[in-house]
Amino acid sequence: MDVYISGVGMTKFGRSKDPLERMMTEAATLALKDAQLERVDAIYIGVMNVEEFIGDSNFATLLADTIGLVGIPSTRVETASSTGAGVFETAFYAVASGHMKDVLVLAGEKMTHLPTAKTTRILSEVIDRSERRYGATMPALAAMIAQKYAQAFDLSPMKLEDILAQVAIKNHSNGSLNPYAQFRKIITKEDYLKSQMVSYPLRLYDCAPITDGASAIILTSHPTSVKVSGIGHATDTSAVRHRSTFTSFNSTKEAASKAYTMAQLNPSDIQFAEVHDAFTLFEIIGTEDLGFFPSGEGWKALEKGATQIQGNLPINPSGGLKSRGHPVGASGLAQLVEIVYQLRGEAGEMRQLGRAEVGLAHSIGGLGNNNLVTILERSDRKRAMKEGWKPGYHPEIKVAKRDTVPPPAEGIGLLETFTILYATPEGFRSPLTLGFVKIKGAEMVMACNPDYRSPKELKMRKRVYFKTREGLYVFEKFNLWNRLKRWFKK
Amino acid sequence: MDVYISGVGMTKFGRSKDPLERMMTEAATLALKDAQLERVDAIYIGVMNVEEFIGDSNFATLLADTIGLVGIPSTRVETASSTGAGVFETAFYAVASGHMKDVLVLAGEKMTHLPTAKTTRILSEVIDRSERRYGATMPALAAMIAQKYAQAFDLSPMKLEDILAQVAIKNHSNGSLNPYAQFRKIITKEDYLKSQMVSYPLRLYDCAPITDGASAIILTSHPTSVKVSGIGHATDTSAVRHRSTFTSFNSTKEAASKAYTMAQLNPSDIQFAEVHDAFTLFEIIGTEDLGFFPSGEGWKALEKGATQIQGNLPINPSGGLKSRGHPVGASGLAQLVEIVYQLRGEAGEMRQLGRAEVGLAHSIGGLGNNNLVTILERSDRKRAMKEGWKPGYHPEIKVAKRDTVPPPAEGIGLLETFTILYATPEGFRSPLTLGFVKIKGAEMVMACNPDYRSPKELKMRKRVYFKTREGLYVFEKFNLWNRLKRWFKK
Repeated sequence: MDVYISGVGMTKFGRSKDPLERMMTEAATLALKDAQLERVDAIYIGVMNVEEFIGDSNFATLLADTIGLVGIPSTRVETASSTGAGVFETAFYAVASGHMKDVLVLAGEKMTHLPTAKTTRILSEVIDRSERRYGATMPALAAMIAQKYAQAFDLSPMKLEDILAQVAIKNHSNGSLNPYAQFRKIITKEDYLKSQMVSYPLRLYDCAPITDGASAIILTSHPTSVKVSGIGHATDTSAVRHRSTFTSFNSTKEAASKAYTMAQLNPSDIQFAEVHDAFTLFEIIGTEDLGFFPSGEGWKALEKGATQIQGNLPINPSGGLKSRGHPVGASGLAQLVEIVYQLRGEAGEMRQLGRAEVGLAHSIGGLGNNNLVTILERSDRKRAMKEGWKPGYHPEIKVAKRDTVPPPAEGIGLLETFTILYATPEGFRSPLTLGFVKIKGAEMVMACNPDYRSPKELKMRKRVYFKTREGLYVFEKFNLWNRLKRWFKK
Repeated sequence: MDVYISGVGMTKFGRSKDPLERMMTEAATLALKDAQLERVDAIYIGVMNVEEFIGDSNFATLLADTIGLVGIPSTRVETASSTGAGVFETAFYAVASGHMKDVLVLAGEKMTHLPTAKTTRILSEVIDRSERRYGATMPALAAMIAQKYAQAFDLSPMKLEDILAQVAIKNHSNGSLNPYAQFRKIITKEDYLKSQMVSYPLRLYDCAPITDGASAIILTSHPTSVKVSGIGHATDTSAVRHRSTFTSFNSTKEAASKAYTMAQLNPSDIQFAEVHDAFTLFEIIGTEDLGFFPSGEGWKALEKGATQIQGNLPINPSGGLKSRGHPVGASGLAQLVEIVYQLRGEAGEMRQLGRAEVGLAHSIGGLGNNNLVTILERSDRKRAMKEGWKPGYHPEIKVAKRDTVPPPAEGIGLLETFTILYATPEGFRSPLTLGFVKIKGAEMVMACNPDYRSPKELKMRKRVYFKTREGLYVFEKFNLWNRLKRWFKK
């Protein structure tokens, strides 16, 4: 059964004094009004971690009551930071099954009321325990990926900085046109360069902010102006270091492949997209993984202006997570709300795209391991059907081949990538140097380094000496001293 | 599209040294093997509060990886203590939609590793904040409902005690036959009476234990021996005191009504049931709410032996939550695993029911506000189809009519029900006297009483004097002194 969208709504994103259930009620009320509905058959609630952010459990029930829909079945759904997209997918199947006619999808998160180090700790719990115990945060892992991307595609530190700044500048510019955005100010390259380092090479302006907000969509089996054309969902390894590539996300590629197939569309059919830019580089990787640009060339399209709001393929016309804000549970659904505004021609004079018949949303859960791709389309869009659909998306998916040999307690390895983390979570000293160390014939390890403080002192793909201290791997420069020490131990 | 069950599996419930993901992998592996499958199209994970029980977020991703199904879409679903049933419902729609062929439903919880006061606090977070802030726990609210049930149906304290003991004795007896059960010992009335008071009038043997465990089911669109015939889901007010009745659960009745309608079955067609007995009385209320027995007469059926394993309508042949154990996220799915064992004739010589073609599972989320009813049926069961199905379930649903008048800070009210809570959550002194106070023309309030220690000193439906202290309502005996005080204030 086909599934359509009959209503959307969202709160302004930002810092709010309202409790989460009030924000979510506001979004739900707007969506119900938009759909001209008073009742629905079911409610699906997307929140990532209300348990720790606000100390509540049984939140789906609380919401049904708060909205004034006591009795209606209400289910909470969670897929880490892609929760907003995950709850939309779940509700989609409920309507597609024919068992539900009208369903409210409601997502939100309340984050700004806690100290940043605590919020950072809570957000870090989406990271695999084996990496989190080193103090790794989401920005730290994203920074290590940025280092790999720059190395793989021969970008100098200055070039990388320039590209990342361009993403931030573009998305802030778009966000300045969006009344729902947390940040409505344009930023310059100078502003970007002045912003503090969060985890080298990523600055504050490379990271989506901490945000409160809620978004809502009504799904229906009754035809409306906007149709859900395709949905794809895939996971990847829990630990980042277990993957075979650090410059793209398998889970995006597999999700995109499913979404394009369900929609019988190809990347070239997509007219605009909301791409998960929790970190600036992720927007570039996202546009490559989705098949818009070849691998390693997303930044070239950005430089040419293709992804600008006036470009051929506008990316994040809403301002993205970077500028609209990132209430973790709500973002995936807010992307879809933006696409509906665009498809309906309701995005406002300044932000409205000229050609808006097919839009795609891409949402990343965790550090790229629970991703979703959703394609929405105007129901009146004419499709060229003369020869049927031919798949035009053939991404290279490198499946992780995990070495089953456990790593030794001490030895020599290759520093695969590293970062210096300044914004550490609760319980960790700042700065904190973290790296992945590749060991011949054994599983790659995460390791920390208590000494190095400057990124210039470390080099990627150089040999390092690693040992174990209090159950953690520690790496050091490989030099005569530890070479000798090692030799003597033999 | 019809949905069938091709595989089931569960761990032994109890106290386990294994981490949660290992227990869940064990259950998943058993179910996959049972279904003779190596891959599925999607995974749905039911866990209630891994965030606080084990400090993990992004658990759906971790599980896909741990099971060895990296890449497969994985979504976490939660409906408080009915999570196991909620995740089954969610996965059911995914298969019913035709988008998924084989889906793994996997539920679990790890609880025994924490101190009981902390576990009690975490479990209490499913309670509405306005009631939880008084220190109300699940047993405390269940105890207040037990007091109302006894009053409504004229049961003396001794009679109530006797009935509740019979539920515990029956379920322990059934559990003694179940190799998956946490408690496999038969208990006597003497054991019951010796067990400590948790929240008057509920004893330790009235409450389901704290348990570790996992359960798994494979749903498929391919016909098998067991079919999912009906599913119903409904919510109720977040706060218990906002309901119009305390002796039954609207959410069970509405969920049952939907499940019977979808299955085109009636209560008289059900041959056995797993009924949510997190508290002994809830089994009795459940059998009434589900239409098996008239309201207020479930205990009579119990006394007559009808719900015994050899009775006409065996209830909780598995031992129920009481004896099999209650890993909160897993229980709802474990009930369905038991029903599949019974329908397939695989429950083992001692526990196997003679006539097992249609079974029902009933799961309560929170304090009766996110409930599900699921009906499974042998696919080869012959239905009498001569005249079509006529609904034979017409429960009385009393909708909450909330008084919008806020309660005054001080005054005279009626003590609607009360309990004395001995097992208090972290941060509350024991014992703690709690009650609902009815105020004429205004919303009912929860109130505590710092003085009373014996249940004999308090009487239901008696006038009390209430006032506000540090933002909480406090009630006292209504006597000359506070009557005078009040009079002088005027």
